[in-house]
Amino acid sequence: MASLDRLSTALSKLPGIGRRSAERMALRLVLDRKQMMSELIAAMDEAQRELCCCSLCGSITSVDSDPCDLCSSSQRDDDVLCVVETPNDIMMIERSGGFHGRYHALMGNLSPMKGNGVSDLRFDVLRERMASHKFSEVILALSTDVEGDSTAAFITESLKGSGIKVSRLASGLPSGSGIMYSDSLTLSRALSGRTDVQD
Amino acid sequence: MASLDRLSTALSKLPGIGRRSAERMALRLVLDRKQMMSELIAAMDEAQRELCCCSLCGSITSVDSDPCDLCSSSQRDDDVLCVVETPNDIMMIERSGGFHGRYHALMGNLSPMKGNGVSDLRFDVLRERMASHKFSEVILALSTDVEGDSTAAFITESLKGSGIKVSRLASGLPSGSGIMYSDSLTLSRALSGRTDVQD
Repeated sequence: MASLDRLSTALSKLPGIGRRSAERMALRLVLDRKQMMSELIAAMDEAQRELCCCSLCGSITSVDSDPCDLCSSSQRDDDVLCVVETPNDIMMIERSGGFHGRYHALMGNLSPMKGNGVSDLRFDVLRERMASHKFSEVILALSTDVEGDSTAAFITESLKGSGIKVSRLASGLPSGSGIMYSDSLTLSRALSGRTDVQD
Repeated sequence: MASLDRLSTALSKLPGIGRRSAERMALRLVLDRKQMMSELIAAMDEAQRELCCCSLCGSITSVDSDPCDLCSSSQRDDDVLCVVETPNDIMMIERSGGFHGRYHALMGNLSPMKGNGVSDLRFDVLRERMASHKFSEVILALSTDVEGDSTAAFITESLKGSGIKVSRLASGLPSGSGIMYSDSLTLSRALSGRTDVQD
């Protein structure tokens, strides 16, 4: 059944979905094609019509409100820009409630392995935004892996001499965890980034 | 963004997909709406048009070939019927290559918890098939949990006195595994179902 295979293949391209999960999902969709599959098709049709990426920060927004609410809100701190990898990261940080400035999603990180070079990411829009608006601090909320580190290094280098403060998220023990469950790199970063308790 | 929420909700109904995974999938689809989302919509449209469940065994087949290839093939053993829970199980058993008879998918198992009673499953079609064709053996390839056990008991009871041999799949250690990785119920079933090595 070629159409079942095609459906499995399309599903297996979703993040975190392997071949077997995709097959299970495809079968379930076909069994419940009247309701579950129709609902999913309708939801995707609607999303395709109504959603796009904000031309400034890159987060998901509706086509009627670009720039997005985060970029156009007057309530947010115009001094600080938080650079993230994906729109998903913006949602996560928003939920944490720990940041009230502006965002910029690069849509990935510098990774020779994935073929992501400087021109594949949203560095051009970032450069324009930095030129047109004077941020006093740029927070690099990037992954703590090799790709994240090199992306951070690239941005830090390009902002050298601009007088803009560049910071990265603290690296250390996740909350609710202990030393026992931690790996040695995390531990050594938590040690070197230790904070003074008298503060 | 209501349409992003609706897409996440529709995706979270897929088997094995939690809220966070559904959100990640929705974001990825919106980011890649030109290609990935279009492909998935096309694959589902096609599946909805072209696939259905076989009116005999219940497996997934194309609307042009109902009864399905497994039911209509003359190469298969007409004496043995394998009763399974889902079309997925049929695919798994076919891949194992260990069975060459006919199939019957119940589309679930007897489960008061899920609200699955006798009338919700394909017992009526099973009864018709058993009446119209004389199988010599019925293999119950059902789950080894409470629901599977009660479904098996129900079928066994209903076939009592019919002269048809009823069997269940062997329960024991999975291959490639050892006693160390086994739970006590599996072990006790493996012990009581032990096979004679002189055979």
